[in-house]
Amino acid sequence: MSNRYDIAIIGSGPAGLSAAINAKIRNKKIIVFGNEQFSNKLIKAPRIDNYLGFHGIKGQELKEQFANHIKAMDIKINFERVNNVYAMGDYFALMAGDNNYEAKTVILATGIEFTRPLKGEEEFLGRGVGYCATCDAPLYRNKVVSIIGYNKEAEEEANFVSELAAKVYYVPMYNGVYNIKSTVELVKDTPLEVIGDLRVRKLVLKNREIETDGVFPLKDSVPPSQLVPGLEMEDGHIKVDRHMQTNIPGCFACGDCVGRPYAYMKSAGEGQVAALRAVNLLDNRTK
Amino acid sequence: MSNRYDIAIIGSGPAGLSAAINAKIRNKKIIVFGNEQFSNKLIKAPRIDNYLGFHGIKGQELKEQFANHIKAMDIKINFERVNNVYAMGDYFALMAGDNNYEAKTVILATGIEFTRPLKGEEEFLGRGVGYCATCDAPLYRNKVVSIIGYNKEAEEEANFVSELAAKVYYVPMYNGVYNIKSTVELVKDTPLEVIGDLRVRKLVLKNREIETDGVFPLKDSVPPSQLVPGLEMEDGHIKVDRHMQTNIPGCFACGDCVGRPYAYMKSAGEGQVAALRAVNLLDNRTK
Repeated sequence: MSNRYDIAIIGSGPAGLSAAINAKIRNKKIIVFGNEQFSNKLIKAPRIDNYLGFHGIKGQELKEQFANHIKAMDIKINFERVNNVYAMGDYFALMAGDNNYEAKTVILATGIEFTRPLKGEEEFLGRGVGYCATCDAPLYRNKVVSIIGYNKEAEEEANFVSELAAKVYYVPMYNGVYNIKSTVELVKDTPLEVIGDLRVRKLVLKNREIETDGVFPLKDSVPPSQLVPGLEMEDGHIKVDRHMQTNIPGCFACGDCVGRPYAYMKSAGEGQVAALRAVNLLDNRTK
Repeated sequence: MSNRYDIAIIGSGPAGLSAAINAKIRNKKIIVFGNEQFSNKLIKAPRIDNYLGFHGIKGQELKEQFANHIKAMDIKINFERVNNVYAMGDYFALMAGDNNYEAKTVILATGIEFTRPLKGEEEFLGRGVGYCATCDAPLYRNKVVSIIGYNKEAEEEANFVSELAAKVYYVPMYNGVYNIKSTVELVKDTPLEVIGDLRVRKLVLKNREIETDGVFPLKDSVPPSQLVPGLEMEDGHIKVDRHMQTNIPGCFACGDCVGRPYAYMKSAGEGQVAALRAVNLLDNRTK
């Protein structure tokens, strides 16, 4: 299969980029999913002293060093968001919006989501709560959808859903200019709780309640256990062994998503280990 | 005890230096044992592409980056070689030549020794084979000692032992000018085997045999299990958990000495994890 990648890397922070350069050096066909800023956490860091080799560097400058590094190695980042990864036996299927990708191995480097779930969010997951509004849009034709946007990308999803849904509420969790259609109702309020019975009925905010059929908290990353069905977690992190293997053969994880300390160097080191293990697995298969 | 360090770090490769900067940032009183070149492996690397942030850097240049980093943080390296680390309950005693040091926690970042032991070396360890000739010199008064030197520092040990021993043979495993006393016999040959009965009797070389009471293979680093009595090993590496803890409470390990892949980034990441765990342990103790 010429379209099948050897290694799909999800995440473009230090863990994902370190995995990418190591996999590329070993001549693997890779695809890296991430965002233009690589890591929101990194670029906001005012000063970093604990990344060995760079003393007193700004996060933005370290990001530039990383950008130069991957550019020199001709590694590009795909900006689509991967919403689902399915283990298909000898390969993985990755769903990213309208596009599907296939990879023999997967490295999860999705970082950690610091925002706590809303009250009721986990309870109603799959019963009105979802993390990919565009994927689920067909289910909400002529219904009411509330989108809680943690970043600007969520605006596009709100606009897309509004073409099918009867009504879309958009609750932004950030400040700025919101590029939403006039048919989308902007709600500047703090969401507190999702309530319902068999399915979601209401989104409760600090100052009002919204009757709604669906609630989509669209965060920077999809929770790993939602991203990869069957993935084993431990204390809120992906469970891995010392070789960064998860419980799913061929699926590795590294960086903040596998545990503390949340630190760049630790993440980059784990990215290297994950990539070299994936390479090892691939090379042993083809022997 | 004002002389007691919070953390003693043994090794000055990427693992040891990363541990040092992280411990220092957390305001711990540290001592780092290593050598002027930091890591012989690093400075010999013609080109490194997999240390995220530096593409196509020479090992010597990366070493300079590391040197600038620790200098900016006022971290100094002690060039003495630690020969023994003893767990004393609530602290560790470190023996380095004539000097003793105390530390509440220890981080082993000793790298990996690529030279295989000689045939018989492990069998006769403690029965004529040793790794610190100066320490054991008093036992060899008026006896015959063979020193296999893997680096120039071994020459000093040979000279020192020659003041007490009846006879010292010096077998250098490197080329160059040997600064040994005229009483020390230089043997340019390849050592193959240590043989004996209850104790060492002979060192067998490719072209000759030497009758000897003691054999000291003086390598760049002391094997970890010799360095720290009671340290648990696994497949030739120090056994650690995902937090870099060894089987001895307060004793951590990181880098090549804990396992493959032998890679700079992985080592630096582990050094960070080991240091932050040690910091954690210290902070919890003083609460």
